[in-house]
Amino acid sequence: MPFHEHPRFPRGFRCASVHCGIKAQGPDLSLFASEVPATAAAVFTRNLVPGAPIVVGRELMRGGRLQAIVVNSRVSNVGTGAEGIARAQRMGSAAASALGIDPALVLMSSTGVIGVQLPVDKIEAALPGLAASLQGDPMVGAAGIMTTDTHPKALSLDVESSTLTIVGKGSGMIEPNMATMLVYAFTDAALDGATLDGALRGAVDETLNMLSVDTDTSTSDTCAILANGLAGPVDPGRFASALTTGLTRMTEMLARDGEGATSMIRVTVTGASDRGDARAFAKSLVNSPLVKTMVFGGDPNVGRILMAIGKCFDCRVDAGRIGASICGVTVLERGTRLDFDEGRVRELLRGDTVEIDVDLGLGEGRARAWGCDLTHGYVDENAAYYSS
Amino acid sequence: MPFHEHPRFPRGFRCASVHCGIKAQGPDLSLFASEVPATAAAVFTRNLVPGAPIVVGRELMRGGRLQAIVVNSRVSNVGTGAEGIARAQRMGSAAASALGIDPALVLMSSTGVIGVQLPVDKIEAALPGLAASLQGDPMVGAAGIMTTDTHPKALSLDVESSTLTIVGKGSGMIEPNMATMLVYAFTDAALDGATLDGALRGAVDETLNMLSVDTDTSTSDTCAILANGLAGPVDPGRFASALTTGLTRMTEMLARDGEGATSMIRVTVTGASDRGDARAFAKSLVNSPLVKTMVFGGDPNVGRILMAIGKCFDCRVDAGRIGASICGVTVLERGTRLDFDEGRVRELLRGDTVEIDVDLGLGEGRARAWGCDLTHGYVDENAAYYSS
Repeated sequence: MPFHEHPRFPRGFRCASVHCGIKAQGPDLSLFASEVPATAAAVFTRNLVPGAPIVVGRELMRGGRLQAIVVNSRVSNVGTGAEGIARAQRMGSAAASALGIDPALVLMSSTGVIGVQLPVDKIEAALPGLAASLQGDPMVGAAGIMTTDTHPKALSLDVESSTLTIVGKGSGMIEPNMATMLVYAFTDAALDGATLDGALRGAVDETLNMLSVDTDTSTSDTCAILANGLAGPVDPGRFASALTTGLTRMTEMLARDGEGATSMIRVTVTGASDRGDARAFAKSLVNSPLVKTMVFGGDPNVGRILMAIGKCFDCRVDAGRIGASICGVTVLERGTRLDFDEGRVRELLRGDTVEIDVDLGLGEGRARAWGCDLTHGYVDENAAYYSS
Repeated sequence: MPFHEHPRFPRGFRCASVHCGIKAQGPDLSLFASEVPATAAAVFTRNLVPGAPIVVGRELMRGGRLQAIVVNSRVSNVGTGAEGIARAQRMGSAAASALGIDPALVLMSSTGVIGVQLPVDKIEAALPGLAASLQGDPMVGAAGIMTTDTHPKALSLDVESSTLTIVGKGSGMIEPNMATMLVYAFTDAALDGATLDGALRGAVDETLNMLSVDTDTSTSDTCAILANGLAGPVDPGRFASALTTGLTRMTEMLARDGEGATSMIRVTVTGASDRGDARAFAKSLVNSPLVKTMVFGGDPNVGRILMAIGKCFDCRVDAGRIGASICGVTVLERGTRLDFDEGRVRELLRGDTVEIDVDLGLGEGRARAWGCDLTHGYVDENAAYYSS
């Protein structure tokens, strides 16, 4: 495995987290900072009702440079109008003042309940202390952006003489609310903006964009990368490959910790007419409530795989060519259910990782998607009171 | 209300049901028949892996005439290859023989587990007795096509001198399996094929096609209408309107009895740029797991409405113009959350019928969609063993 046993930061990056009083308890504000300005790239949610930090962040990213990221949890600053925009800007400015840097170099993220104004006074009051407590363990920052994630998520790996560190939060809720994915990557590799942007978009397309917990697209999703150059240049191809490896691992950490999840589902589609079809089939399978409950129940009701393929109305399908396996056991062949060992498949469906491989038998299109099972835990977390 | 207190058949239609031995117990085979051949129209699932009865049925409907419908439950005859097609044809032929009519006039439907061959011998053995027991109460046929529906579903109403009767089954499971919607309409009105087909497609588009329990499209969905003409001609416009009224009522019966449902959700979208956008928003709202769990939990986490609108990436949205109400209480205005009475909204969300009205503030596009809440019952029904 290329990953460090305990994640560590690249040269020049540090982080801190604190309880500033938005949540009842636990850290609710994190700060990530580089010693020097960094080349930066970011991708944001496609939701048409994005949060104020997304609106401000898109504008900021035109500069292509960042030096710090400030993140709060519990209140997402979405559905808050012009006042929300002003408060997002105040949050960024407060972080910039505390660090003594240009506000144009600070990206802000918020995750939590929608439609509530951000308690920005508390954030402003906490930032000087937070900036003074920056330290070298990325797990501290990772813990500060958790909501109901069950554990902090960070990883790091080396790329030639540089280090790549990825910190993320996934599909937990703050107050009962939608899953929001926030992922930040930091490297001391020296890369130009276009290379960094291309590497990020390419890697996200194959990893985070192929993750779904419940089909509901957050208004706050953000993935940003900062490259401060302190380790000098690296081979762009090797860097892009390491970024995909790192984001794949982060995607699996997020899928495994999906709301209420007891199993991660990894779907690999081959033999589709083209890549677009393969992606649609893979997403349809990880998003199907009936496939997800099949995994939760350890129920070898594998005909549901055919249903989830067949409902991709715009894709090419030849029902008589579809094959599928679950954790290596072939269950469908030429579109019909085989007489497989049901007891064995039940056991496999109850494992930590459920691999569903589907072959359309048509062409060279391939794709992979990640998800998790649909459980009582999901219903409980999301049916709980707004005010709890 | 235009509906008869107890549903009855139009002139010339009868039905019967029986336990033929596919299920462990309870009726699992129904027959609906007209005294004389009828003008007919049908719409089928768009799933690309349709069941054998759908493949055969599409071919049959080219004739535009039907005299009977035979339906079994527990085995859907999907993913069964050429042998499945042959068995579907045998099922239709057996019904035709028992009724002494042309097999080209018999539509067959199957609902249940996917990938298991149809026990057609049992069906063939039962059909003569079934044909001999035809009677006049549509509820008998409705009971015979139930799976885990909690009650049989039929309704009837008058259109001028004719009667329109609709029988349906919804989102129960047989063995734990996908929801399948089967809806049959019968009338003694005399209507030509093109008029009947147009009325059916128009009505289905506004009603059954706007119903979703869990986003999973069955491989067996069928809606067919038979007009035997025994009551003579009716005004086509009045008939089309009655068909929409009847199918709206049936859609609500199906939504209310969705798998595990405790509330029906009815979403009305107005003010969208056009009808297509309005339909997309309405469907996104009834399909969102976070909106559905909000209703189940009686949780006034109304920001989720903004999220579900915003994830319709191909639609026109102005976040600052979105308004929404829940059962008449305004909760969102100009894209921001109002300070509404949370206790009152919690109570309303727990009602039998939850109305969510959304106004996009952009144009004249309107649409309505139906669904139900996402509950522990849904997870339980669909996580149960295939073999249970």
